[in-house]
Amino acid sequence: MTDAPTACLIIIGDEILSGRTQDANLKFFGERLAAMGIRLKEARVIPDVADVIVETLNTVRALYTYVFTTGGIGPTHDDITTMCVARAFGRTVIKHPEAVRRLVAFYGHMPNEARLRMAEVPDGPGVDLIDNRVSAAPGYRIGNVFVMAGVPSIAAVMFDAAAPMLQRGDPVFSNHVEADVKEGDMAAELTDIQARYPHVSIGSYPSMRGGKYCTSIVARATDKSAIEKALSEVATLMKKLGGVPEMGSLS
Amino acid sequence: MTDAPTACLIIIGDEILSGRTQDANLKFFGERLAAMGIRLKEARVIPDVADVIVETLNTVRALYTYVFTTGGIGPTHDDITTMCVARAFGRTVIKHPEAVRRLVAFYGHMPNEARLRMAEVPDGPGVDLIDNRVSAAPGYRIGNVFVMAGVPSIAAVMFDAAAPMLQRGDPVFSNHVEADVKEGDMAAELTDIQARYPHVSIGSYPSMRGGKYCTSIVARATDKSAIEKALSEVATLMKKLGGVPEMGSLS
Repeated sequence: MTDAPTACLIIIGDEILSGRTQDANLKFFGERLAAMGIRLKEARVIPDVADVIVETLNTVRALYTYVFTTGGIGPTHDDITTMCVARAFGRTVIKHPEAVRRLVAFYGHMPNEARLRMAEVPDGPGVDLIDNRVSAAPGYRIGNVFVMAGVPSIAAVMFDAAAPMLQRGDPVFSNHVEADVKEGDMAAELTDIQARYPHVSIGSYPSMRGGKYCTSIVARATDKSAIEKALSEVATLMKKLGGVPEMGSLS
Repeated sequence: MTDAPTACLIIIGDEILSGRTQDANLKFFGERLAAMGIRLKEARVIPDVADVIVETLNTVRALYTYVFTTGGIGPTHDDITTMCVARAFGRTVIKHPEAVRRLVAFYGHMPNEARLRMAEVPDGPGVDLIDNRVSAAPGYRIGNVFVMAGVPSIAAVMFDAAAPMLQRGDPVFSNHVEADVKEGDMAAELTDIQARYPHVSIGSYPSMRGGKYCTSIVARATDKSAIEKALSEVATLMKKLGGVPEMGSLS
């Protein structure tokens, strides 16, 4: 597990930080990366400010196996991600011939100068386009950085297109058991269960359901049987506290 | 505008990075802070890992006027935020007498040891409790760091309780205009409009609506009339392109 690939997601966009737009990409990337055994270690949400984007890119690309960015690769003045990625790698920006070809095919004619910005990538070696089967304008990979659109439906198809470029780790499975018990009543024994399963990450999530306190215990690990054993102990504990545990299904 | 207070939100929790839980706190904090004139400059989503929490806290509390954390202050073994905040400030952890009193009042008796962890705060000066009128267990402020719950309904009441402790800046207003035009057709002239309104931050957000391309142009600034003027130029541009612009309302 220690040499599983790691990742950071950089969500670029003033609209997320201002609260105008609810981010949907983090949940998607989190799920997909977990299924591929890539550990999403961190996500950073940053504004459309060039210096911040460049500095964040250079910090995190040295820390993690992969960096994914979403946002800022459209045709308008506030789309500055590619210029920043190029600066972070000390490169200039060029129009990628194959990306231009795809835009021409998509629009049926040579697009205007603004749209042609969507064909821009950093110059030099190690750059691969990432297909966009929704709206043609591609993302790209440069080194360990994967540059993708912010619109969730486009980010999703780009992730699928980029997936074959990614090294996988042991997949992380998870399951949960929940019951109408209070987490504060379970906490001490749950600590003991966690101690008995050091390779299972056990999280406790309280909620209210129909006016009743409810606790969901989530177990995550690469070892399915360890998840099953740990959650079965949790279910026993829930029953002892008068709850009616419902086991989820392994995913 | 340059001396407006700034902020960073730290969202602590494996469940957000794994994709299990959709974060809802960023949007809430983004909206509230904007309304108070506090500039949310960054959000970081980090796992329940002590070293990461401590290092992230110490990095960002030196960079921004305020740091808000959500998550990890419940009664279970995976709730390690307070221990990490104390470490970041070089302090030990104590049970805060007033917090204990509130828990006793809420539960009707002395709570068990696990729940008493929710009365813990870093020792020493400059610590103020943040009221929690939902479930009693308080958050707290230490220096410029505000430690709050992860459950969105509780984070929200804690934010309201903490708001009077925050210095406000000039509020940032925003409005938008949208139309059935493609952003790529507007981009060049939009760049000119942005150049004419350097103190207005203009963002372009494409979407599909009923199978038609739609673009929403958002303007944000402390000066309401500048927003109005900039968006009126955008509306004129949208009409020129055959669109039917709909103006939002200033908020």
